[in-house]
Amino acid sequence: MRYELYYWPQIQGRGEFVRLALEEAGADYVDVARRRGMGAMTKMMEAHHTPPFAPPFLKAGKLVVGQTANILLYLGPRHGLAPKAEAGRLWLHQLQLTIADLVLEIHDTHHPLGPSLYYEDQRGPAKKRTAEFWKERVPKYLDYFERLLESGGGSWVMGRRVTCVDLSLFQIVAGLRYAFPKRMKAHERRIPGLVGLHDRVAARPNIRAYLESERRIPFNEEGIFRRYRELDV
Amino acid sequence: MRYELYYWPQIQGRGEFVRLALEEAGADYVDVARRRGMGAMTKMMEAHHTPPFAPPFLKAGKLVVGQTANILLYLGPRHGLAPKAEAGRLWLHQLQLTIADLVLEIHDTHHPLGPSLYYEDQRGPAKKRTAEFWKERVPKYLDYFERLLESGGGSWVMGRRVTCVDLSLFQIVAGLRYAFPKRMKAHERRIPGLVGLHDRVAARPNIRAYLESERRIPFNEEGIFRRYRELDV
Repeated sequence: MRYELYYWPQIQGRGEFVRLALEEAGADYVDVARRRGMGAMTKMMEAHHTPPFAPPFLKAGKLVVGQTANILLYLGPRHGLAPKAEAGRLWLHQLQLTIADLVLEIHDTHHPLGPSLYYEDQRGPAKKRTAEFWKERVPKYLDYFERLLESGGGSWVMGRRVTCVDLSLFQIVAGLRYAFPKRMKAHERRIPGLVGLHDRVAARPNIRAYLESERRIPFNEEGIFRRYRELDV
Repeated sequence: MRYELYYWPQIQGRGEFVRLALEEAGADYVDVARRRGMGAMTKMMEAHHTPPFAPPFLKAGKLVVGQTANILLYLGPRHGLAPKAEAGRLWLHQLQLTIADLVLEIHDTHHPLGPSLYYEDQRGPAKKRTAEFWKERVPKYLDYFERLLESGGGSWVMGRRVTCVDLSLFQIVAGLRYAFPKRMKAHERRIPGLVGLHDRVAARPNIRAYLESERRIPFNEEGIFRRYRELDV
């Protein structure tokens, strides 16, 4: 079965967490809006009897699954990227949802007054929110995952097998490095486990091939991770 | 089995979405921090080998499940509040995650500069974010659920059986009424389906008994839904 991934064609965004899982799994998929244009995506959002609130969503045969973490909940056990037993699946999904919360907070750093206004109209509040984010929230989130890696004692969050959550944490580290190079550089000494995990993910054959391909959209200032010099002090 | 729910004892907050499900199900549970104090909750967060990032979390035998939507994913099929087949469960969870996104945006109306600062230190940005929220986001979210109710043609989002998502939508309507009485009053003519759903949930025997009991913590200005007069114009 060929999966169809529906997501904005010009950004990594939330879709990237799904792309990384599909790529690591070596799954057969088509990134629909990139290949066939936006019309195909808009049509799906309007027509289907289980319409997604927003991209990304994944079509798998007749099934249409929306919400990033939910898509990974579906894909994980099918592609060896999540345990099959319920307790393990729930634990992994819990971590994925915590990453989803972090992603929303990252987006809020440049959009504190809401997703519907331009960044240029909220620069002052963005500075304050970003300062608070790095002071209070980054340590809370990243220390949490750092401690999980330490206490697990393995290469990955759940021990010996790579999961969707590891791929997502790679993306968090890569994204924070892109958006806040100075702040992140100073912070990295505090999270050696996550930095190591980032490097191990990047070195996996399928992921490395993906990152070097044109399928990986470069970071840019329309996605979640945006580099605005005035926010990176 | 008696469930243990761990959540802040002084607010409805995110824990309320779990409380509503437990109450509707008539499940045996103890609201630990309210009955035994905060010490028991703090201890669980530090000690367990799958430590939750934040409350709420639910202890079910040996299992500890965190993240509101994940707890409902666990409870739903066990208590007749979610379908058992995978496609239905994924669809319901997708809706639950969309509600979780809305809840975060509601919280951001009074905390646009971040959850770690006081409301009093972000009143100006809160006004702007709230205006934007009611102009762009409330219509987008509530119209989405309104359309689902219309197209389903039943009493509930998934048709003939009440689910966790219906209980959560009750809480959204009740909370928006509490926090923004004027704005919500003006908005309600646009969402007759959701208003009807709210009333049907409130009239269910277990929910009605719960809402009249001391187990239902009143809305207040420490939770997600806060009534600040200057934000309700």
